[in-house]
Amino acid sequence: MKILVTGGLGFIGSHTVVELQNEGFEVVVVDNLSNTSLGVLDGIQNITGVKPAFEKIDLREKDKVQDFFKRHDDIAGVIHFAASKAVGESVENPLLYYENNISALIYLLQELQQKPEANFIFSSSCTVYGQAETMPITENASIQTAMSPYGNTKQIGEEIITDTVKVTNINAILLRYFNPIGSHPSAEIGELPLGVPQNLVPFITQTGMGLRAELSVYGNDYPTPDGTAIRDYIHVVDLAKAHVIALQRLLNKKNETKVETFNLGTGTGSSVLEVIETFEKVSGNKLPYKIVGRREGDITSAYASTEKANEVLGWKAQSTLEEAMASAWKWEQKVRM
Amino acid sequence: MKILVTGGLGFIGSHTVVELQNEGFEVVVVDNLSNTSLGVLDGIQNITGVKPAFEKIDLREKDKVQDFFKRHDDIAGVIHFAASKAVGESVENPLLYYENNISALIYLLQELQQKPEANFIFSSSCTVYGQAETMPITENASIQTAMSPYGNTKQIGEEIITDTVKVTNINAILLRYFNPIGSHPSAEIGELPLGVPQNLVPFITQTGMGLRAELSVYGNDYPTPDGTAIRDYIHVVDLAKAHVIALQRLLNKKNETKVETFNLGTGTGSSVLEVIETFEKVSGNKLPYKIVGRREGDITSAYASTEKANEVLGWKAQSTLEEAMASAWKWEQKVRM
Repeated sequence: MKILVTGGLGFIGSHTVVELQNEGFEVVVVDNLSNTSLGVLDGIQNITGVKPAFEKIDLREKDKVQDFFKRHDDIAGVIHFAASKAVGESVENPLLYYENNISALIYLLQELQQKPEANFIFSSSCTVYGQAETMPITENASIQTAMSPYGNTKQIGEEIITDTVKVTNINAILLRYFNPIGSHPSAEIGELPLGVPQNLVPFITQTGMGLRAELSVYGNDYPTPDGTAIRDYIHVVDLAKAHVIALQRLLNKKNETKVETFNLGTGTGSSVLEVIETFEKVSGNKLPYKIVGRREGDITSAYASTEKANEVLGWKAQSTLEEAMASAWKWEQKVRM
Repeated sequence: MKILVTGGLGFIGSHTVVELQNEGFEVVVVDNLSNTSLGVLDGIQNITGVKPAFEKIDLREKDKVQDFFKRHDDIAGVIHFAASKAVGESVENPLLYYENNISALIYLLQELQQKPEANFIFSSSCTVYGQAETMPITENASIQTAMSPYGNTKQIGEEIITDTVKVTNINAILLRYFNPIGSHPSAEIGELPLGVPQNLVPFITQTGMGLRAELSVYGNDYPTPDGTAIRDYIHVVDLAKAHVIALQRLLNKKNETKVETFNLGTGTGSSVLEVIETFEKVSGNKLPYKIVGRREGDITSAYASTEKANEVLGWKAQSTLEEAMASAWKWEQKVRM
């Protein structure tokens, strides 16, 4: 069965392509290469033995999207990763985010709603919960006003999908990611941010490599055991596997409603200092860091309730934080050689 | 000064073009003619003596928007009406609404943010308040989860503009309309919905003309004095004048913040039965109607606090419901001759 993976050369996308191919799916990757490179295709091939079909398409171009589906009328499912994802950049250039993240989604769904049936997996984010009132966060936690255009595009995306499935043959699953980290254990693919990393783990590993002088820890006065903010760091390979399971659920018509939502996290919160300690342990390096002020818009704590994903999807994250950090470090060392 | 009016051949747009021209502005109308016709240009000319410049452009086509601003580098302000507006249709075809109402907005703002300064007036709606807790509704009333894709596009539009003005030279005013009715007193322009009218007043006037057998009144068991739902019906000419005042505020740099929001209503709520009675009075016709069940998503009551618009813009609606209904009826009679 042929699956379209948009943004399939990105961080989570590429790991999902690997897991899809491992399960025997035929994958067509579409990516505009705005934040990745063609070399990722080789990485995927080195792991799976198969180079996925690839088309360079910018999904903001409606006619290109239409043309793609004309040429591929046998797409059984779409996993839609393609999106801009840097919170800070979204504040600086909101229209880029609204266009990238909304137009592409609309054009894809417009094609899918013409089919007798269609299956759609959407990359959402725990950012929709804002600072939730209780931990762990279940899928029923209330949606908060977005704190950035990036976050808003994820909420809007969920709304567009929810409104669309009601009146079309599209079935959808919304996956709300917590904090994906790590890389494939082979270190053939991994996270490779352009410019200064916006996320903690690539900043740590780059600092570990000496590319950055020191890590800034944003705030140690949060109401947490060690004062630093708590997040739920999930190994990207675990996350990728959840996508395959979600897709199979739709393909096998096991979904109970036209749109279902799942949190994807480990269920365990880790503080910034715990992540640093774990890095120091797996790398054997001391990590230079300094405590600075809180970053606007950062919340205190977020970790997932894994109950629904576990019971309904039969999925649970397998990797420990240590394993995830070790894989991230292995990847960082490899790409800097 | 040259003003771009998108959707300038629509109901509110055309009345605003008239008021702009009356105030000496040079107007360029852009419309895709999806819900109106070129004849409206003649109506505007008959009133003002000037036929505005017109270009048929679908603002969902980004390259057309870019090309327009290349050819018109002297646009001093944009009043953005172009949008789809039928609640029921938006439920049936959500992607049409998300694309129409969001893409066009993004493309316009992308052009404006490249200018040293830009002024933008946005057509929003009281629908963002949902069923407000207290009446009259002030601009500080909380925003409720949208009850339709149409309503959601208005909320999203406001969010996109608010995020964008923060980091650009664009100044914006969001105008939240209550229920615009009526027509220019000359009956040269007016409301001419395609198909079955979605709004009360055109349905009444069409029924008055015998085009519809009877009016359905959706619910007479609301907690209101006569049991029918209450809305704030504002004469479209009053509404149009508010746009000119809002534009002048931006052009004269009188705005206090980069984005300002105003409710546009009369401040008086009228029930469906009161509107029917008023129609019967001004037309001398008995209106056939029947009471049917409530319509999903309809709220009990909504009328505007006019305080902010009055104090800050110095604007107040002048026409009575009777005058508005008389103008609507005059227009309906003229177009059906």
